[in-house]
Amino acid sequence: MSINSAPPQEKILAAAEVMFASKRFHEVLMDDIALGAGVGKGTIYRYFKNKEELYAALLKDASTELMKLIENAVEVEVSCKNKLIVILETSINLFDARPHLFDLILHAEAFQRTSVEFPWQETRWNVIQLVESLFKQAEDQKEFIIQNPKESSLILLGGLRAIIRFGQKPRQKHLCNDIVHHFLNGFSKSLPLAT
Amino acid sequence: MSINSAPPQEKILAAAEVMFASKRFHEVLMDDIALGAGVGKGTIYRYFKNKEELYAALLKDASTELMKLIENAVEVEVSCKNKLIVILETSINLFDARPHLFDLILHAEAFQRTSVEFPWQETRWNVIQLVESLFKQAEDQKEFIIQNPKESSLILLGGLRAIIRFGQKPRQKHLCNDIVHHFLNGFSKSLPLAT
Repeated sequence: MSINSAPPQEKILAAAEVMFASKRFHEVLMDDIALGAGVGKGTIYRYFKNKEELYAALLKDASTELMKLIENAVEVEVSCKNKLIVILETSINLFDARPHLFDLILHAEAFQRTSVEFPWQETRWNVIQLVESLFKQAEDQKEFIIQNPKESSLILLGGLRAIIRFGQKPRQKHLCNDIVHHFLNGFSKSLPLAT
Repeated sequence: MSINSAPPQEKILAAAEVMFASKRFHEVLMDDIALGAGVGKGTIYRYFKNKEELYAALLKDASTELMKLIENAVEVEVSCKNKLIVILETSINLFDARPHLFDLILHAEAFQRTSVEFPWQETRWNVIQLVESLFKQAEDQKEFIIQNPKESSLILLGGLRAIIRFGQKPRQKHLCNDIVHHFLNGFSKSLPLAT
């Protein structure tokens, strides 16, 4: 479905994603979003009470999409190693397909009030918990043992974030496979013994 | 030296660090910084032309401190493994000692104009390059081989960021040692063979 034939709500969210990702919150005007979405300002207010609500909906929308894609991808894999690989692949694919999403989250986090839970944080904890539960499962099904699951999941997911952000594009074909393989078995290769 | 006897410039930077880390850029007023620093507003303008310049000075200051601490720590170590460990230790220690610095950088990045290079980015590339050059050095001195230096340094440093941000506190004693050890040799431990 092209954006022109999309329902107004989707058009509004798509236009808002681009704007919130590139401007400061207070600089984004409902007028501009209406213009970008090709709808009247009144239409926006029929769906979203105010700018804060629209912003929250954007993040909620992306979060739901990511978690659903990850859950579906994890479900079809048997080994925990492969489940980890598809978590990485799904995340990289989503962020690559929605180039404004990363900045949107960055903005949301920086703009958060200390009193309010940053909306993406829950997604983050969900993914961390999923990875930790896979480590536990791997041990149960005698696949591998992760000695420090908390710290290890942070390294893997923090590493994933850096790859999404700064990694080489186009992505290498076996990127996620390699990362998980090296994460489990080491990024260093022993030197051949001197002969 | 306590903050009260510090030179005005340091008092201003310390007060500004707290404010820029907790508020949106446009919400931070020079008046509030003056109040926080215990100096007159005129004093601030003697050191910094405007809010943008003060903000840039803050990040420049933190960047210089981090790179100097890292360089000094790396210099006294011989093995590349230990050099990697002290890079992690130094970074964690600095961010733990300056609890507002992380948010300050987060804000600076989110607030950046797409046309302007984000001021902390250079620091980031410097640390990435340092880590990559240590991988090269490790191979030269036959310590270990990293097969994909670019991707591997992103995983290690992205992981470090996540540990700084979300890792358990107080930090475990051998945290950085463990991270680098597992990074090189794998986060998984082989299961003992069934008997």
